[in-house]
Amino acid sequence: MSDDAAATAVSAPVRALVFDAPGEPLDVLSLRELPPAAQPGPGEVLSPINPSDVNTVQGKYPLSPRLPGGVPGHEGVAEVVTVGEQVTGLSPGDWVIPMAPATGTWRTHGTFPAANWHRVPQEIGLAAAATILINPPTALAMLEIFVDLAHGDTVAQNGATSAVGEAVIQIAKARGIRTINLIRERADMEATVSRLKSLGADLVTTEARLVDDLKASGLPAPRLGLNCVGGSAAQAVTRILQDGGTLVTYGGMSMQPVTASTAAMIFKDISFRGFWLSGRWAKEQGREGRAAALDRIVGFYRAGQLEAPQVHPFPLGAWRDAFAALAAPHRGRKIVLDMRDEAQAGATAQ
Amino acid sequence: MSDDAAATAVSAPVRALVFDAPGEPLDVLSLRELPPAAQPGPGEVLSPINPSDVNTVQGKYPLSPRLPGGVPGHEGVAEVVTVGEQVTGLSPGDWVIPMAPATGTWRTHGTFPAANWHRVPQEIGLAAAATILINPPTALAMLEIFVDLAHGDTVAQNGATSAVGEAVIQIAKARGIRTINLIRERADMEATVSRLKSLGADLVTTEARLVDDLKASGLPAPRLGLNCVGGSAAQAVTRILQDGGTLVTYGGMSMQPVTASTAAMIFKDISFRGFWLSGRWAKEQGREGRAAALDRIVGFYRAGQLEAPQVHPFPLGAWRDAFAALAAPHRGRKIVLDMRDEAQAGATAQ
Repeated sequence: MSDDAAATAVSAPVRALVFDAPGEPLDVLSLRELPPAAQPGPGEVLSPINPSDVNTVQGKYPLSPRLPGGVPGHEGVAEVVTVGEQVTGLSPGDWVIPMAPATGTWRTHGTFPAANWHRVPQEIGLAAAATILINPPTALAMLEIFVDLAHGDTVAQNGATSAVGEAVIQIAKARGIRTINLIRERADMEATVSRLKSLGADLVTTEARLVDDLKASGLPAPRLGLNCVGGSAAQAVTRILQDGGTLVTYGGMSMQPVTASTAAMIFKDISFRGFWLSGRWAKEQGREGRAAALDRIVGFYRAGQLEAPQVHPFPLGAWRDAFAALAAPHRGRKIVLDMRDEAQAGATAQ
Repeated sequence: MSDDAAATAVSAPVRALVFDAPGEPLDVLSLRELPPAAQPGPGEVLSPINPSDVNTVQGKYPLSPRLPGGVPGHEGVAEVVTVGEQVTGLSPGDWVIPMAPATGTWRTHGTFPAANWHRVPQEIGLAAAATILINPPTALAMLEIFVDLAHGDTVAQNGATSAVGEAVIQIAKARGIRTINLIRERADMEATVSRLKSLGADLVTTEARLVDDLKASGLPAPRLGLNCVGGSAAQAVTRILQDGGTLVTYGGMSMQPVTASTAAMIFKDISFRGFWLSGRWAKEQGREGRAAALDRIVGFYRAGQLEAPQVHPFPLGAWRDAFAALAAPHRGRKIVLDMRDEAQAGATAQ
């Protein structure tokens, strides 16, 4: 490679997961080689596969990269390779997370405006950095914007083993708020209960046992309920809410909607709300508020109040295996794409 | 009757609808003669039979008179017969409406603290006075407390021919807010549409035609939806709400709950709330705020901005016929109990 060429194309060819039209990920995604990044910015390190990423590929998510040739991936951590002359505040080697919508993180390298990225300290570790953008701020925001919770109040949630669920347990614990956690019946029940309790959960139970276990626990009825499941698991949480309580839905794993009972709304003054980090919250917070929330999450990590989720990394080239692993129930780990081997492969190919 | 006796018992024997234990109204209610009111306060004139009254007798409403021997009836207009020496601001002949919970208005006379009553001017007429307590303030409050509506905004509602629905149309019209009104398919479709339009409705349509008719109307999507039906009629209203809109449920005529779609809550930021005039609203308003709302309703009547509902009066003695009339569909009139003949009957019997 001549010095002249190096001035405009310093990365290896970029390898990325790309789709041209919406569909099931295994049908429409392919791993392609894209032109080298000109004046490359960040190279990706780890990028989680979130449900919202899958929905993006399916065409069921309101944010999408431009098609054809779109690269999915809303989240991930990247390492800055080089920066333009005008760029201050970012240096090669820094870890950064994407702040623009639908960045397309399932790729080895890319060139982006510096303003699209937010620096995170490497001391929090790769797994935390890769997964900090969406799940922990979702937990933090839901605990703060719907109900003015006081020390000692309780929050109930279903899907407690989800990444958001585990962040809710830990952030609530750090703030002196107690959590009532619904999980599904499963083979490794004891281990799951024990893990959630080690994170700070006050009560871990199932739909069938919830009312009895809550009574026996002596915990007050919750003022806030969080729902990522729907159907009967949403009704179970609604049923134990205090009068005037709020059920916030942020996911629909069961594909069943929430049944909002007329009597619950009228006589118990229960509100049913929704939360989407990329929706009204992001608009109201602006770039600065979003960055501030991320810095608060970094603070929880630094204080040892938040544990990084367990991740199960797959090399980008093994993306089909990653999607297969997504389908396994109760996996207890976040599936992430690891770009490092592919970046190396690209460099070698060059 | 001697003068001595008149000092403590000046009314005829009181006749009232009474129940001893919850059940279906026709099974458990009976018209009984109660002792004459001592130092009688108001005598009832007209008392509507509201769904909440029926639910009270069924034991399905959170407010109930003490049982056994409870007299139902939350609403109605009474005429002051005589007042105690300390009472100021009320005089014999005044029309008053009950401000205490579960007053038990299905009776000819009663003795009550003066503070439990609020005076209404006779110029608004008997039908308006008898029905002012619950439906119009419900409409007014729902239009004001959930969404900050501006001139030209639209509100959508189902059950538009209900007493609340008609009040919503008229109060919205008076405030420059436009209404999209869902009604059920019925035989007298044209007459119903024409009546609601004469009250100020901007669009009157059915579930099946709603989306097309709204588009053709050029009206903006509503920010507030009002639901007293549930089921598909609630979904129809939810579907046309703007992003960030609110669906307020104040009744459940279809006995079907509201389906709160996960996508509507998350991606469209739709909130599902409930409203109960005797719940948080009454608590937050206090006696003064409630009286002020009633006086505002009186103002709408005086300004000719609100029409009194059509009423179908039944003598108290014909209460079984009144309940039978309640069951007739699309009746378009409020069923009210008329105490005047019974009061007369009691007086004659005496």
